[in-house]
Amino acid sequence: MKKLINAPETVLADALKGIEAGDPNVRVDHVNRVIYRATPKADGKVALVSGGGSGHEPLHGGFVGVGMLDAACAGEVFTSPTPDQMQEATKVVDRGAGVLHIVKNYTGDVMNFEMAAELAAAEAGVEVAAVVTNDDVAVKDSLYTAGRRGVGITVLLEKIVGAAAEEGRDLAAVKELAERVNAHGRSMGMALTSCTVPAAGKPTFDLPDDQMEIGVGIHGEPGRHRVDLAPAKEIAAQLVEPILDDLDMTGAPAIVMLNGMGGTPQIELYLMYGEVAALLEKAGVKVARTLVGNYITSLDMAGCSVTVLKADDEMLGLWDAPVHTAGLRWGR
Amino acid sequence: MKKLINAPETVLADALKGIEAGDPNVRVDHVNRVIYRATPKADGKVALVSGGGSGHEPLHGGFVGVGMLDAACAGEVFTSPTPDQMQEATKVVDRGAGVLHIVKNYTGDVMNFEMAAELAAAEAGVEVAAVVTNDDVAVKDSLYTAGRRGVGITVLLEKIVGAAAEEGRDLAAVKELAERVNAHGRSMGMALTSCTVPAAGKPTFDLPDDQMEIGVGIHGEPGRHRVDLAPAKEIAAQLVEPILDDLDMTGAPAIVMLNGMGGTPQIELYLMYGEVAALLEKAGVKVARTLVGNYITSLDMAGCSVTVLKADDEMLGLWDAPVHTAGLRWGR
Repeated sequence: MKKLINAPETVLADALKGIEAGDPNVRVDHVNRVIYRATPKADGKVALVSGGGSGHEPLHGGFVGVGMLDAACAGEVFTSPTPDQMQEATKVVDRGAGVLHIVKNYTGDVMNFEMAAELAAAEAGVEVAAVVTNDDVAVKDSLYTAGRRGVGITVLLEKIVGAAAEEGRDLAAVKELAERVNAHGRSMGMALTSCTVPAAGKPTFDLPDDQMEIGVGIHGEPGRHRVDLAPAKEIAAQLVEPILDDLDMTGAPAIVMLNGMGGTPQIELYLMYGEVAALLEKAGVKVARTLVGNYITSLDMAGCSVTVLKADDEMLGLWDAPVHTAGLRWGR
Repeated sequence: MKKLINAPETVLADALKGIEAGDPNVRVDHVNRVIYRATPKADGKVALVSGGGSGHEPLHGGFVGVGMLDAACAGEVFTSPTPDQMQEATKVVDRGAGVLHIVKNYTGDVMNFEMAAELAAAEAGVEVAAVVTNDDVAVKDSLYTAGRRGVGITVLLEKIVGAAAEEGRDLAAVKELAERVNAHGRSMGMALTSCTVPAAGKPTFDLPDDQMEIGVGIHGEPGRHRVDLAPAKEIAAQLVEPILDDLDMTGAPAIVMLNGMGGTPQIELYLMYGEVAALLEKAGVKVARTLVGNYITSLDMAGCSVTVLKADDEMLGLWDAPVHTAGLRWGR
């Protein structure tokens, strides 16, 4: 295992120091492992809390800041944060208008965020709503999930709903928008190589040199099938077709993310986006906005995922609103 | 070789399609392999042209847009673009105020940009100035370079000088600023693994499982020495100390970039930045601005580099100016 770390057991603590040092607009509670905005938003605005296992950076800690999240709870690598962390974050960020939990659909995350919401309501009277993302069309159930996994749409949702909360919309409106974004988003991923969890010290799964995993999850969970390596054009088709089969994306402006899994260089991401864009155009999907880069990763896995959001003018307007986070920034 | 490509010989052409499809604010001349702003800047403003071998994305094509470059010339992977490409770009972007060439110090790039400048002056009467970046403290001369290699400072320079050109400064002022940024910037890189050039199909160099290359170049050129793997804290020291030995960075606000080489995930980059920040603080360097991510890569190499710019208030102001490119954006 070749990694830029001090020791497997300090990866999260050390990475949190770097997140804090690298962005003057956040501060980190190192005991509770929560990343907060350095300057809380104004009273009366809905706050957004997300979180999950680490190893997916910049998600979620890199998305804390004006226009996106108010706080992110960091679990150990590929391990849900605890209800205590989430409860603490929820209480701290509440500005009296309630808190939206943004939860990727993994069993541990869902359970712990539910518990945290109950505790925050009971102990501090915080009104909490939640959205559970489940955009991954690869598999119906998986190793860590009942139902579809929540993946790339979470990035787009945090941006769009973050802008809506910044505008001062109330909790019910913010939650409704979040559910609408999730309902209109679909993703599919693939891996050329496994990731290696630092504490394990060896690849999560074996993948022969001439094969790839289609439909892989962001923790290296098995996907739809393992197939022979193929040209980028064919890989793109294997990602785009299941998305379009699942939801008709025509007749609306689409926001498309071509996301790197962590170990794939930008030149390959640009190249893959070119193939994806060609397929979408052929299918009559009008791409209005794009992101091409590493936004929701799986440690050092080589591979990529495609997320398509069937947006509307409201979502595009919110997409274009300023955001200032370490991981995504428009407007300083 | 596991890569998201169609074929080794079409990597550049295919990636250029993706760059164009992914950013509505650029257009690509696919014959000359030049990436331009979709909307040229106003008449009377200095234009910025950069370029070099491909494989370092988002540099340079991802930095074309308002606030940074006017055009980027893309060579084949790790191969200089030709004088013809550069001349074409120079003529197209000139708005009557002259063109600055931003050239990384590699022998082929320097020679070809010089020739292009002469041709553009002779054939089209374009006034051209050039800055050659040479911030890499690792080695004095290297495989492809007489003198120091030009690496990470190029990213910071394109941002800062891009903002100055946007303000309407004249060519002499833009060139002077560019030289000042380069003169105050220092970088040092390291690799955990080799990169693999698609056309070669195998790693550029062999690096045993228990070793790393300190001072590596962005094409996998040998560095200062090959040493045993070490904790992140020690790696950070091996990058920061040669930088501070070379230039006293105290007494001025610093802009610091912790850059990934392409195959290293964001959690490790955050972690490394934490170690670098601690060392800089201990050395009395005041960090004013940061970038932590993949900005100047070496295909799929695992590793990172540190760039420190001893800035001043003028440079900070230009750093904070809006920029809107695929690879770096503040302000949409």
